[in-house]
This record gives sequence, C-alpha cells and structure tokens, in this order.
Amino acid sequence: MLNFGLVGPGNLAQSLVPALQNHGKVLQVFSRDPLRAKKFAEKFGVPLHGADYSELSPFVDVLFLAIRDDALRAAAAALKSVIAGGDTIVVHCSGAAPLSELDDLGKRIGVFYPLQTFSSSRTVDFSRIPIFLEGDKSVLDVLLPLARSMSSEVFVADFSSRLKIHLGGVFVNNFVNYFVRCAETLASDLASDHKIYLPLLRETVDKLNCLSPTEAQTGPARRGDRETIVKHSTLLQKSDPELAEVYRILSRRIEALYRVHEGA
Amino acid sequence: MLNFGLVGPGNLAQSLVPALQNHGKVLQVFSRDPLRAKKFAEKFGVPLHGADYSELSPFVDVLFLAIRDDALRAAAAALKSVIAGGDTIVVHCSGAAPLSELDDLGKRIGVFYPLQTFSSSRTVDFSRIPIFLEGDKSVLDVLLPLARSMSSEVFVADFSSRLKIHLGGVFVNNFVNYFVRCAETLASDLASDHKIYLPLLRETVDKLNCLSPTEAQTGPARRGDRETIVKHSTLLQKSDPELAEVYRILSRRIEALYRVHEGA
Repeated sequence: MLNFGLVGPGNLAQSLVPALQNHGKVLQVFSRDPLRAKKFAEKFGVPLHGADYSELSPFVDVLFLAIRDDALRAAAAALKSVIAGGDTIVVHCSGAAPLSELDDLGKRIGVFYPLQTFSSSRTVDFSRIPIFLEGDKSVLDVLLPLARSMSSEVFVADFSSRLKIHLGGVFVNNFVNYFVRCAETLASDLASDHKIYLPLLRETVDKLNCLSPTEAQTGPARRGDRETIVKHSTLLQKSDPELAEVYRILSRRIEALYRVHEGA
Repeated sequence: MLNFGLVGPGNLAQSLVPALQNHGKVLQVFSRDPLRAKKFAEKFGVPLHGADYSELSPFVDVLFLAIRDDALRAAAAALKSVIAGGDTIVVHCSGAAPLSELDDLGKRIGVFYPLQTFSSSRTVDFSRIPIFLEGDKSVLDVLLPLARSMSSEVFVADFSSRLKIHLGGVFVNNFVNYFVRCAETLASDLASDHKIYLPLLRETVDKLNCLSPTEAQTGPARRGDRETIVKHSTLLQKSDPELAEVYRILSRRIEALYRVHEGA
C-alpha cells in the first residue's frame, strides 16, 4: 500500500485526497499556511501536517503538488535537499506546466493531471475522470497502477499532448460557463438568472452521450439559415460588437463544416 | 379539453405531441409528404392526417406550425381561406420569427416557443422547458393555461425579447456543442472521441445548478494567468488561427470581468 503526501490543500485536494485514501494512506499535508494544513489534516484524517518541507516523512512514496503552475519551480527548489537520494516520487497535477518544472528534483518526478474542474464545495467522483500521466519508466511503474485503480480513463501523455487536452478543457469548461453568462445577459429582459438555460444545456450534454458533436450540431449555422444569422448578428452588433464578432466567426465555421460535409 | 392540430411532424413534434396529449387531444397532423403524416399519426395515435390544409377539422382549437421559419409565410397563406372566420388559433413555434409571419391569418394567431433542442431520436420532458408565448389577450387566454399545465416556466414575450432568448440558446446549445467538437480535435493525439470531455462538461453544468456563471467561472483567464494564456494562444495560432482569435477574445473578456469585479 502506498503512502501519499500533498502540497496545497486547495480545490483539487478536496477531491484528490478522498480518492487517494481509497488506494493507500494520505500521510502528510503541507501548506504555506500551517493552520490551513492543520484544518485539512483534521478534516481528512491525515496524521502529519505543516508548512516546512524539511519535515517530509521518508515514508511518503508519492508527493502530489496540487498548487498553482507559477509556484511549481519554487516548490521544487525548496524540496530539493529534502528529497535528495530518497525514493519519493514528486508529481505535479497541472495540464499546462511541463514536467521540466520539477527538474531540480532529479529523476523521480512525474505528472498526474486529472481533466476536471474542482471546487472546494464539491467532491468529484474520480472514477470517471480522465487522468494524464508523464514520467520515466520507473515512475510510470508506480503511477500507472495507481491511476488505473482510481479511474477507467488513464493516458500517458507528453507535455505537447497534455497542453492540447488542457486547452480543450478551457473550451469545454471555461468558455461554456462564459457562454451561459452571455446567454443570461441576453435573457435579462425576462428571466431572473441563467437557470432558464439549464434544461437546454443539460439536453446538449445528454445528446453528446449518444451522438458525436458533428452529428449533434443543430441551429441556424448548421441549417445555413442566413436570415436568422443576420437577425442575431444585427441584434448583438448593437449591444455587444465584440461578442457579435465571436458569433460571426463560430457561425461561419459551423456553416462551412456542413456545407463541406453535406455536399460530399 | 382542447383539440390540437400539428403541421410538420419533425423533431419538435416528436416531443411536443406526447406533451400535448397529456392536456388534450391531438386530432390531426399535416405534412407536405402524406406518407410522413400517416406514419406519424400511426405512431402517436392521431386520428386525422394528410397533406391538404383544406381538410383541416373545424374541431381543432390550436394548430401548431412546427416548421422551418422560412416556411411560415407560405403556410399562413395556404391556411388563410381554411381558417377564415373560424375560431382556430394558429401558433408558430419559432424563437427567431416574428408573430407577423402569420398576419395573413387575422387575429387568432400566436407564438408558442419552447427553449430546447429537439431531435427525432429523443423525447424531451416538457415539464422543465421554458415556454415563451405571444398573442393578443383572447389568444393568451387559451395559450397561457395550456403552457402552464405543460411547464413550470412560462413567459409572455414579444419578438425582441424572444429573439434574445433564442440567440442565448445558440450560445448555450449550438456553440457549446461546437466547442466540444473543437476540444475533440485538440484531443485527437490521445482520445478516440469527444467523450473524454464529458465528465468535465457534466461537472460544468452541475456547478451551474448551485452557482451563478459569474461565481462558477474558473480557468487561466479568470485567474489572470497570462503565462498559460500565451501557451494556449501560441499552440492554437499554429493549428487554427481563427479559433485562436476566438480564444483571445473570450479570454480577454473573462479577464476584464474579474479584474473589474475583484478590484471593486
């Protein structure tokens, strides 16, 4: 059974730690703020906690850095002397940072990137989250069985592939959420909030369980319904010209896709 | 109990007719293709079917035009002499067409627009679909109780408000679906299809049950993480410069929103 350590008791940690506890022991948690580490440790029954990496237990097999991308180098530098010569694997959990951010730590480094959005208020079920791993063979020999015990979707991916997956996640999560906000603004004549769009959004997702996005596409651009596209563009041009530009680009691209497809 | 008629046994009709049958009788269905009308009538137990409006039953209280926007005027012209002097209300179901498309038919006209995406393969539960109505008082006296018996979210909306709702729907459904397609392309190094993104998309929607889109926003633009934004832009600029432009516009807008919010 593996022993885990964690740096950064934030949004990801709230879901990662319970998932890890199904497959080993979470032994130690670190935060710059020792009180935060203590509270997290109490909540999740983690025996060791603190702010000082020099107290890292030699029994930690895998140390997860669940911290901001721009803090990775400093964390690696601070861990260097503590880790030196030991067997502990240090992994970061970022989709957008290369493995080389941890180069200070030598060979026992890796990436464990779960494709999901994490909030402190929600514990996400890891079993259906795709996990992307990177590391040399001896590191993957540890990470692969662990990840596969946690999720049915595990991939080994280099930085270039991982960054593309992460960028796709920005479209699927960040920009989808932003589009719901745009729709909420458009509906403000009538509706008190965005919830008026949730049945539509939910059906959009449910359809993608059965159909590919190419099959599931509907709407004026898909139909080549220029009259409706002009009505929408004109309306948006007045209230929000920049969003009108986004509307036009996306409509043009969808139109082009189906002209080609259905003309073929 | 009301009697309903339907023109256009397409995607919307597949979900609308069962919903109407809970609140009245669907008496008659029309299609340009009489065989299609017959098949639909048999499937849903509709007693009358055909291609010829002159056969419209005088017992139809509300006739739903579930057809393309660009076919509404011709349908109204063709129905004019049949409807004349009768009590039948004719409604269209479009978010993007004004009521005036039916002006040929006099006063007993209305709009019954359900905000949802309909596919022939899926029957959607109407009870949680927002319905937007338009018509004069005597028409609303019939449509409002009907819509309220079908859904808990019923609004009276003029064309200007309805078009905005419809445009919001393009962002929430058509563009979300398209973004999943973009993400699928980005993931094609590793994943065989878009399903790798479905847990993320589902969590994005689930969060919007509890949080406003402003609260739920995450990602590099929200954090002001310029380093990641530059990595994404550079990657996308090479493979798809037009989509890179969309990425930059949306990231800039999200960044600006939270700079203002959190600086306030």
